[in-house]
Amino acid sequence: MDEFLGYVYLVGAGPGDPDLLTLKALRAIEAADALVYDRLVAPEILDLAPRGAARICVGKRPKHHPIPQEDINLLLIRLARSGRKVVRLKGGDPLIFGRGSEEAMALKKSGIAFEIIPGITAAQGCAAALKTPLTHRGLASSVRYITGHCRHDQDLDFDWAGLADPETTLVVYMGLANIGEICRRLLAQGLPAATPVLAVSNGTKRGQHSLLTTLSDAAADARAEAFGGPVLFIIGRVAALAAELGNLEDYALAKKIALAVS
Amino acid sequence: MDEFLGYVYLVGAGPGDPDLLTLKALRAIEAADALVYDRLVAPEILDLAPRGAARICVGKRPKHHPIPQEDINLLLIRLARSGRKVVRLKGGDPLIFGRGSEEAMALKKSGIAFEIIPGITAAQGCAAALKTPLTHRGLASSVRYITGHCRHDQDLDFDWAGLADPETTLVVYMGLANIGEICRRLLAQGLPAATPVLAVSNGTKRGQHSLLTTLSDAAADARAEAFGGPVLFIIGRVAALAAELGNLEDYALAKKIALAVS
Repeated sequence: MDEFLGYVYLVGAGPGDPDLLTLKALRAIEAADALVYDRLVAPEILDLAPRGAARICVGKRPKHHPIPQEDINLLLIRLARSGRKVVRLKGGDPLIFGRGSEEAMALKKSGIAFEIIPGITAAQGCAAALKTPLTHRGLASSVRYITGHCRHDQDLDFDWAGLADPETTLVVYMGLANIGEICRRLLAQGLPAATPVLAVSNGTKRGQHSLLTTLSDAAADARAEAFGGPVLFIIGRVAALAAELGNLEDYALAKKIALAVS
Repeated sequence: MDEFLGYVYLVGAGPGDPDLLTLKALRAIEAADALVYDRLVAPEILDLAPRGAARICVGKRPKHHPIPQEDINLLLIRLARSGRKVVRLKGGDPLIFGRGSEEAMALKKSGIAFEIIPGITAAQGCAAALKTPLTHRGLASSVRYITGHCRHDQDLDFDWAGLADPETTLVVYMGLANIGEICRRLLAQGLPAATPVLAVSNGTKRGQHSLLTTLSDAAADARAEAFGGPVLFIIGRVAALAAELGNLEDYALAKKIALAVS
């Protein structure tokens, strides 16, 4: 007799605003028997699940050790093997800095059926909220995402010459801790000191907080701000458009930028 | 007396599957007086607008000249000035290769209020549909989007050394016409010939068609396939995971890949 095995949806919850969930994600959540979620997923999104669904937070809280990835994998497998429809909710998109593919590999090896539902990643959410393009004719022909977060015992390891491309918008996720080094390295590779930098925390959420500055001042300016939560940096000529098009809550530093944008 | 001016939503319609629309986009469409849309937006999405809403296609059809961007800008302004709620629907995300910021600048200059609603971009839609991560620990620490499409009289102009980074997943939008040159340049910069390449057309839609090949074979293999519609290429070590995790419709070429992925 075949045992009914459950099913796992690896779901991107988007950048914060619950309205930026996809219809597909909404349907999966509404049908879930169990939600396994990260700390940054909004409570309004968790409330979309049926009242009886199990809700399990596996997110890292400040000053607490994170739950090891291996334990999260085993939890998903155990829940699915008990016949549940499991929704694994991650901030942003599960396949962009989300470790969704590590969970997918564990599920595949265990014979658990799964599906991946993409989500609006933080770069897109912040770009839309601040009306700042990621590509724009004449300013940026490509866009690149990196994470500024690295394991405790490791240095940031990037092809710095490749990153310092004035034609490419560089988006740094989780950038606050290492923005000083990142800007120093980009300056050393010849990216102009006046390159605009837009820093955003709580993008698309209440408490959204942004700052427009320059590559040479970004580290000091970001330190001087009391950012709450992770900070995303959009580095490149497109960032200057935030002052022209955007809804910056704080224009204080925007005046530093000499807008050379038509 | 103040004249009521309309409002424009610049909306990302996502990669094709109507279920990948965001809730925010759905609400804007459901309240629209006029839809101005590109050719690649699915009919099911247009059907979400009220029956009486104007529907205006400004997409380029094969063998037809595209409508100049300036004319689209003027259309949006004219519709908004007539007091309408206008939804400008674009495939993918309006701020990633969508020229949404050009329309935003025109609206801003004309004093028209507008908002930007992000959408799942094709890279994310294809990645999720084929269970292929864009970043993955040990395989890709960053992801970069470029477009392989260029104006008729111009060459592809990229920092090729920077693009040929084995630690970065490179996604090429609209890549079919120039994939030969792109692969040649990347090979010349030292990216290994065996680098996996996943090519996808109609990602997330009926008719999804994908091919897993290598950097040295991608141009010939892609020519040999009868791809319908624009082709997105995911170049980098992560693409090999498509064979392990994915739903490739065609494994014929997957066997070429020596999977060095744990």
